[in-house]
Amino acid sequence: ADTINLAVIGGDGIGPEVVAEGLKVLDAVSEAKVARTEYDLGARRWHETGEALPESVLEELRGHDAILLGAIGDPSVPSGVLERQLLLRIRFELDHHVNLRPAKLYPGVRSPLDVAAVAPDGIDFVVVREGTEGPYTGNGGALRVGTPNELATEVSVNTRFGAERVVRDAFARAQQRDRKKLTLLHKHNVLSFAGHLWRRTVEEVGAEFPDVSHDYAHIDAATIYLVNDPSRFDVIVTDNLFGDIVTDLAAAVTGGIGLAASGNINPSRETPSMFEPVHGSAPDIAGQGKADPTATVLSVAMLLAHLGRTDEAARIESAVAADLAERGDAVRSTCEVGDAIAARL
Amino acid sequence: ADTINLAVIGGDGIGPEVVAEGLKVLDAVSEAKVARTEYDLGARRWHETGEALPESVLEELRGHDAILLGAIGDPSVPSGVLERQLLLRIRFELDHHVNLRPAKLYPGVRSPLDVAAVAPDGIDFVVVREGTEGPYTGNGGALRVGTPNELATEVSVNTRFGAERVVRDAFARAQQRDRKKLTLLHKHNVLSFAGHLWRRTVEEVGAEFPDVSHDYAHIDAATIYLVNDPSRFDVIVTDNLFGDIVTDLAAAVTGGIGLAASGNINPSRETPSMFEPVHGSAPDIAGQGKADPTATVLSVAMLLAHLGRTDEAARIESAVAADLAERGDAVRSTCEVGDAIAARL
Ligand SMILES: CC(C)[C@H](C(=O)O)[C@@H](O)C(=O)O
Ligand SMILES: CC(C)[C@H](C(=O)O)[C@@H](O)C(=O)O
Repeated sequence: ADTINLAVIGGDGIGPEVVAEGLKVLDAVSEAKVARTEYDLGARRWHETGEALPESVLEELRGHDAILLGAIGDPSVPSGVLERQLLLRIRFELDHHVNLRPAKLYPGVRSPLDVAAVAPDGIDFVVVREGTEGPYTGNGGALRVGTPNELATEVSVNTRFGAERVVRDAFARAQQRDRKKLTLLHKHNVLSFAGHLWRRTVEEVGAEFPDVSHDYAHIDAATIYLVNDPSRFDVIVTDNLFGDIVTDLAAAVTGGIGLAASGNINPSRETPSMFEPVHGSAPDIAGQGKADPTATVLSVAMLLAHLGRTDEAARIESAVAADLAERGDAVRSTCEVGDAIAARL
Repeated sequence: ADTINLAVIGGDGIGPEVVAEGLKVLDAVSEAKVARTEYDLGARRWHETGEALPESVLEELRGHDAILLGAIGDPSVPSGVLERQLLLRIRFELDHHVNLRPAKLYPGVRSPLDVAAVAPDGIDFVVVREGTEGPYTGNGGALRVGTPNELATEVSVNTRFGAERVVRDAFARAQQRDRKKLTLLHKHNVLSFAGHLWRRTVEEVGAEFPDVSHDYAHIDAATIYLVNDPSRFDVIVTDNLFGDIVTDLAAAVTGGIGLAASGNINPSRETPSMFEPVHGSAPDIAGQGKADPTATVLSVAMLLAHLGRTDEAARIESAVAADLAERGDAVRSTCEVGDAIAARL
C-alpha cells in the first residue's frame, strides 16, 4: 500500500493534545501507511534557540506530503513573533494561497444563534480566504516610536495574480456544490484600489463559470448576514484579513472554534499543504485534557481530501457528524472524544 | 429660549424618510427652538452637478451646532464616490475622530442570538471607533490596472496623536459607566506596527484612569465573543476599519441596523458633530414608508446629549424603549413609528 509522509507540528498549549487525537483518527481510517515526522516547533524551541523555524526545518517540511499543525502561541513570547516567524512564514514560504475554512452547522450542535428563526435552512458554506497577501505581508512600518509623534502604517498588498488564483479556486469549488454560488466579501466603497481589483477579478473569472452565480457583500454587512441569514452563503471568497475575521465568526455561529477545521492549501501540490484547527493554543486549558479535538479531526479529513483520499475523508466526516449528533451536553476529555470518533471508523 | 442650529442632510434612499421622523421627535422633545437648514446632497446632486460636496456647503455646515444625516449612497453612483467625497469628507474635514456607536439590546427586541443561553446578563456596550485614520485615509494606490500584473495597495495610517485622543475619550466614557471596563480590539499579532501603537497607547492612557480596567481581544476573536458572550463588553475602542465591522455585528446582535444609532463626534466642539443611523440608504425599500426610523430617532438623542441636553436625550431614549417594549411583530410604517415615539414625549 502507499504511504502518507506526514509532518506533524503539535506546537503550543493544547496543540499537541488535539493533534494526538487527530493522528489517532487518521490511523484508524487510513488504508495507507502513515509515516510521521514530528517537529518540535513553538514557544519552547524559540526560547531555547532564538529561532522559530530554522531554514533546515523548513526544507525538511517541503519534503512531506502534508503538514498537520496543532496550534502556535504562548503568552511568554512577544506578540507577533511566532505568528510571523513560524505560522505565517510556513503559509507564505509554502505558498498556501488558498486558506480553506468550511462552516457547517452539524445536527445536534448548539449554535449561539436562534437557529429556528434565522437559519431554518441550515448553515453550510465554505470560505476561501486568500493566504499570502493583504495586510498579512508585513509591509508597513513605524516612525518616532514611543513619542507623541509616532506614526505606524500597515500596507495591504493585493495583486491580480494573487486574487485571481484564489478567485478561480473558489469558483471551481462553487461549481462542485449544489447551490453553485459565490460571494465576494470586501469593502470596495472605502478600500477602492484593492476593492476594485477584487471586484473586477470576480467579474472576469466568473465569466469562465457561467453556471456559478456570484454576488457581493461589504465585510461589515456580511457580519450581519452571518448572524441573521447565514443560510445565504455557499462559497465566500475574500482577502486575508477579512477572511481571518469572518471565519472566526463563521466558526462561532456553527458551534464554536472547537469544531472549525482549516487547510492552508497550495492547490498546485508543488509544496505540502498544512491543515490546522482554526482555534489557537488556549494556554489556559493546556494539559488538562479539556480541549475539543474535533476541529483537528476534521482538519485531518481535509488533509485526506486534499491528497485525493476522498473516501477516507468522507468516513471521518460521517464519524464526526455521528458523534456530534449524540454528544449532547456530556463532558468528555480530549482523549475520549478522539476515541469515540475513532471507534466509529 | 435658546436655539439649536441644525444642518439636515436627508441624503439618498430611505434617508429623507427616516430623517423626517427624527425631526418630528426632535420637535416633540426639544425645549429649544430648532432652526433647520436642509442640504440637498447625495446621488441626485452629484449627477446634476458632478460635485458631491461643494466647498461652500462644507463651510456652511461648519456654522451649525450639529448635523443630522439620513443615509448616503445609490447604485447609480460608482462605488466609493459619495462615500469618499461626501460622507468620509465630512467626517475627516470636521475632524469627527470619535465615531460613537452604542449597542444595547432593549427589552422586547428580538435578537438573532439565543439570548437566554449566551447573554443572560443582557447586552449594553458602546463602541468608540476611531473616525479619521486607519485604512480610511485613502492612502494607497494601484499600478498596471487591468493587466495581469496589477498591484493595489491600501495603507492603514495610525498616529499616536490620533489613537491617543480616542483612547482617552473611551476611557473617560468607561469611567462614567457602571462596569468601568475598556476593551481594545485590534490584531496586534499580525498588524504589529499599528497594533503595538494602539496597545501602548491603551496601557499609557489607562494609567490616568486607575478605576477603569482594560483588556484586549483580537478582532477575529471579538466577533466570536459578540455572538457567544456579548455581555462581556462595556466600552470597546478600536480603529476605523475594525470599528466599522464590529459595529455592524454589534447592531445585528442587538436587534438589527434598524435600531443602531451613531455619532461622528468632535469632542472639542470646535466643529459640528454629525449624527446618523448606522444603516445605509436601502434603495430597495426607499419611498415605501417601510424603513424603521428608530435608529435615526436614537441618533437624535445622541445629538441632544452631545449638545449637553441630556434630559431631552434621556426622554427620547425612554420613549424609544417603551415603544420597543410594546412593538412585538406589528408592522408599522416609518411615519407611524415616528408618531408613536413622538406621542410618548
Ligand atoms: C494566529 C494568527 C496569525 C492567525 C491568522 O490571523 O491567520 C489565526 O488567527 C488564524 O486565523 O489562523
Ligand atoms: C458607507 C461607509 C463608507 C461607512 C463606513 O464604512 O464608515 C458605513 O459603513 C458606516 O459604518 O458608517
